[in-house]
Amino acid sequence: MATVSLISDADASKEVVEVFDDIRAMRGSDFINNFWRALAHDPTLLRATWERLKLVMGDGALDPLTKEMIYIAVSVANACEYCTHSHTAAARAKGMSNEMHGELLAVIGMAGQTNALATALQVPVDEAFQA
Amino acid sequence: MATVSLISDADASKEVVEVFDDIRAMRGSDFINNFWRALAHDPTLLRATWERLKLVMGDGALDPLTKEMIYIAVSVANACEYCTHSHTAAARAKGMSNEMHGELLAVIGMAGQTNALATALQVPVDEAFQA
Amino acid sequence: MATVSLISDADASKEVVEVFDDIRAMRGSDFINNFWRALAHDPTLLRATWERLKLVMGDGALDPLTKEMIYIAVSVANACEYCTHSHTAAARAKGMSNEMHGELLAVIGMAGQTNALATALQVPVDEAFQA
Amino acid sequence: MATVSLISDADASKEVVEVFDDIRAMRGSDFINNFWRALAHDPTLLRATWERLKLVMGDGALDPLTKEMIYIAVSVANACEYCTHSHTAAARAKGMSNEMHGELLAVIGMAGQTNALATALQVPVDEAFQA
Amino acid sequence: MATVSLISDADASKEVVEVFDDIRAMRGSDFINNFWRALAHDPTLLRATWERLKLVMGDGALDPLTKEMIYIAVSVANACEYCTHSHTAAARAKGMSNEMHGELLAVIGMAGQTNALATALQVPVDEAFQA
Amino acid sequence: MATVSLISDADASKEVVEVFDDIRAMRGSDFINNFWRALAHDPTLLRATWERLKLVMGDGALDPLTKEMIYIAVSVANACEYCTHSHTAAARAKGMSNEMHGELLAVIGMAGQTNALATALQVPVDEAFQA
Repeated sequence: MATVSLISDADASKEVVEVFDDIRAMRGSDFINNFWRALAHDPTLLRATWERLKLVMGDGALDPLTKEMIYIAVSVANACEYCTHSHTAAARAKGMSNEMHGELLAVIGMAGQTNALATALQVPVDEAFQA
Repeated sequence: MATVSLISDADASKEVVEVFDDIRAMRGSDFINNFWRALAHDPTLLRATWERLKLVMGDGALDPLTKEMIYIAVSVANACEYCTHSHTAAARAKGMSNEMHGELLAVIGMAGQTNALATALQVPVDEAFQA
Repeated sequence: MATVSLISDADASKEVVEVFDDIRAMRGSDFINNFWRALAHDPTLLRATWERLKLVMGDGALDPLTKEMIYIAVSVANACEYCTHSHTAAARAKGMSNEMHGELLAVIGMAGQTNALATALQVPVDEAFQA
Repeated sequence: MATVSLISDADASKEVVEVFDDIRAMRGSDFINNFWRALAHDPTLLRATWERLKLVMGDGALDPLTKEMIYIAVSVANACEYCTHSHTAAARAKGMSNEMHGELLAVIGMAGQTNALATALQVPVDEAFQA
Repeated sequence: MATVSLISDADASKEVVEVFDDIRAMRGSDFINNFWRALAHDPTLLRATWERLKLVMGDGALDPLTKEMIYIAVSVANACEYCTHSHTAAARAKGMSNEMHGELLAVIGMAGQTNALATALQVPVDEAFQA
Repeated sequence: MATVSLISDADASKEVVEVFDDIRAMRGSDFINNFWRALAHDPTLLRATWERLKLVMGDGALDPLTKEMIYIAVSVANACEYCTHSHTAAARAKGMSNEMHGELLAVIGMAGQTNALATALQVPVDEAFQA
């Protein structure tokens, strides 16, 4: 259960329908996942989040699959159950192989470990790392 | 300051020297950063961490630069100051351009935002995302 | 499922009943939510937590609704599923409108984003911000 | 030190200057804090972040001071040193009294405590809290 | 549901069976919990994680029960639902009494509270604490 | 720098002096660390925090040193710089040896790693772990 109801297509306002239509067009699929249906209670927040996501996750100096794996890494560290699921599914859809997933997990686990060690030791930042 | 002293080359035990030598050989540089000098109080932990890091961060289905950017993403979400610095420096050394860094930041920021929204809304995971 | 059983009214010790009675009196409702029923395994911890919560969440320089929204913000950032639900319900009961909820979400999301950016950039604190 | 250099007014591109000018105009002050100077390496990210922040933090169903206190709460839970400083300074500038600050701290501390307890106990969400 | 399927004994590769057999032997039980069945998609990661866990959690300067309680503390702070459950069960199996569990919760809750306060106040580290 | 000034003995109100005196008596030392000096801006919060800490951290089913190590574990996972330092110093004062510190670090690091893996895999909780 969510802290709000999920907005169905039937209940969607004109402003929400416009965003849903754009999501569908961009993805070439009729499926609108629950995140957008929950966010649709605030059409302004829905639109702002979607418009920004489109820009950020598109192709650029980093390819979309790399971006999805970075997104998974943040979502895991933030313990976001929904985002871990949705972005793992998105990464698979964009071509993440089992081998890539295994290495992604290994890096995330390694970072979780050394982050904890560096914080526990309060290691001072080396001058060599200064920008 | 750290919660332990930093082990200098002069103070390093034989077991620590072996690990330091391997770090130097792998990196083709004499520089040993503070993380390893702090960890060196426990030679077993030092060795286990270094041996694992070597394996995990090497080339594979994901390239080393992609792995460094994933490492940065986790380190930022875990608010690890040292790791954010050290892995940003490592990513640059492996070829991360300003454009890549900017996009990495944008994805990390976007994930921080939607992680918070999905958690605040407690969005139920869509069946379509099930493995 | 919890990591402990939930203490029913029938199973509650005299000390637990006293706290439950006080919760009921304060809230003008018979309902005791699961948090207190789980915590009741340790009557001392139950009482200390409840007594402190009463004091902290009461009216003062900040009104109770503002305090509930701050509580939600922390709970979301800590990825606490239970607390996000319970304090969202509490905030609604204290008058949080849909508009207020939407703006609360927008601020929480924005903070999640800029927290990540500031940490990724390791921005040094401006002197102007010093107390 | 930051992971990037801080862009001075002299080094700012035309696009960055436009954003800096807008920040100055909005705040009625010449001061540009380090967050924006670090972010200015990516003018697109700088502009998107600033434009969104302006919208989100303005007056609405919640007043700007309440929003700053919510921002502090998230920043603390995310252990963001910079953001804790900058938004505490902003909240004071918008009228946060010592009494309000004390109560804000008490709520943040209380939430930190019960978040931990609820997660440790894995308390199941009550049906009464369902939206 | 997991982001991967759970590997049953029937589907396990020879390499996975070896690790499962070692887990069973070490624990004197036929039961393999879901964590290992999910991790088994990457036999190398499975083996590395299990081998390390065996070493770290064994008897030493700290006894295995103390280590389990420390593990619970980290898992709670990281909001890891699975780990909170599995290590609470493990601590009980190693002799954690109700009184010990209550005190563990009290310490975890107290730390959650003062961590938040110290971060909100950005308290400078005392020289007396320097290593 | 802190987000508030640190209250010196000379500036302490009568209520604050009483708490400081109790801290000194309990510890058998004149030293008041910065956490309490920052918290002293709100004498009620200062007293409530100190009184609770005294109770929670005293001897019981768990000994004070074990409690300090659990406190460190939470503080590290919450990335609290101040608390990591202060509780590492406190654990040393209560007898934590280098070997114990090394094993504490190893457990904290291991938990950081498997927390990340379990969250990334979204492993469902085994029925066997149910209370």
